[in-house]
Amino acid sequence: MSEPDLLRAAIRDVPDFPKAGVLFKDITPLLKDPAALREALRRMEERWRDESVDAVAGIEARGFIFGGALADRLGIPFVPLRKQGKLPWHVARAEYALEYGTDAIEMHVDAIEAGQRVLIVDDLLATGGTARAAAELIEAQGGVVAGFSFVVSLVFLKGGEKISGYPVQSLVEYGE
Amino acid sequence: MSEPDLLRAAIRDVPDFPKAGVLFKDITPLLKDPAALREALRRMEERWRDESVDAVAGIEARGFIFGGALADRLGIPFVPLRKQGKLPWHVARAEYALEYGTDAIEMHVDAIEAGQRVLIVDDLLATGGTARAAAELIEAQGGVVAGFSFVVSLVFLKGGEKISGYPVQSLVEYGE
Repeated sequence: MSEPDLLRAAIRDVPDFPKAGVLFKDITPLLKDPAALREALRRMEERWRDESVDAVAGIEARGFIFGGALADRLGIPFVPLRKQGKLPWHVARAEYALEYGTDAIEMHVDAIEAGQRVLIVDDLLATGGTARAAAELIEAQGGVVAGFSFVVSLVFLKGGEKISGYPVQSLVEYGE
Repeated sequence: MSEPDLLRAAIRDVPDFPKAGVLFKDITPLLKDPAALREALRRMEERWRDESVDAVAGIEARGFIFGGALADRLGIPFVPLRKQGKLPWHVARAEYALEYGTDAIEMHVDAIEAGQRVLIVDDLLATGGTARAAAELIEAQGGVVAGFSFVVSLVFLKGGEKISGYPVQSLVEYGE
């Protein structure tokens, strides 16, 4: 259990961020600790290396940190999934529900090739809205979702239910 | 000249983004091409490997892609420099001028140790406002700016003048 503990110990609880009553899981101490950062990336690489993944899609912004490094390790393309209005070329868009209203993520329409197997990477699985929108976006462009890799999963928020049917890796889980 | 050409050929011009009259340098084709992405990172790694760099600071959001992968390659910490209100812990802030008004970037106050040599990574050097604010932020926290690494520099915008005195690497330059 030393490997999971190394990662868990490098995540900091921040009360009342981004709003009162929320206990935020801060991964910046993990980014600051090269042993923990490498171990997180090593476990991602090990899990997906033999899964015929053709591209890594990272969700803005923290998903870029892990997704970029993982794409480099695997030697495959990196696809940025961005907030609205950030990508300069022609985009596809997928909306998802927030507590109040909706938000959306976008991907360039030429970011993936039809049939490519795409791994979606983000730092956090919470309610799963963004993750599901990311999968919809990739599938709408003809891609195949190979799975998801998260640093942290807040299991009690049941985000996994929104992406059931896909393989999911979570390096650190906070339970029920 | 094959190496610079590989990178330059993977950057796409997008007219009128984010507003009319601006010719945007889109790096997403470079991210999509594993040979170009690896070559960019290889050149960053080679330039800074023997410069006693203690940490890589990446500027949100595209700086996270290259900065995270470079920190992984060098085996050193990654420090996210983020837009206002995104970091959960105690932050230091540096403001910089925009065409109209000001913006700011933030860093956790415990992100670096006093005396650490920090390499600042971003995808683009334009007017240099963000880059200079990043250096101020790191120095105000007791860090030493080892230098800057950019994928693209828009030389004609003279951003280099705002960070003169620091070592600067630019993989692709668009001149006068």
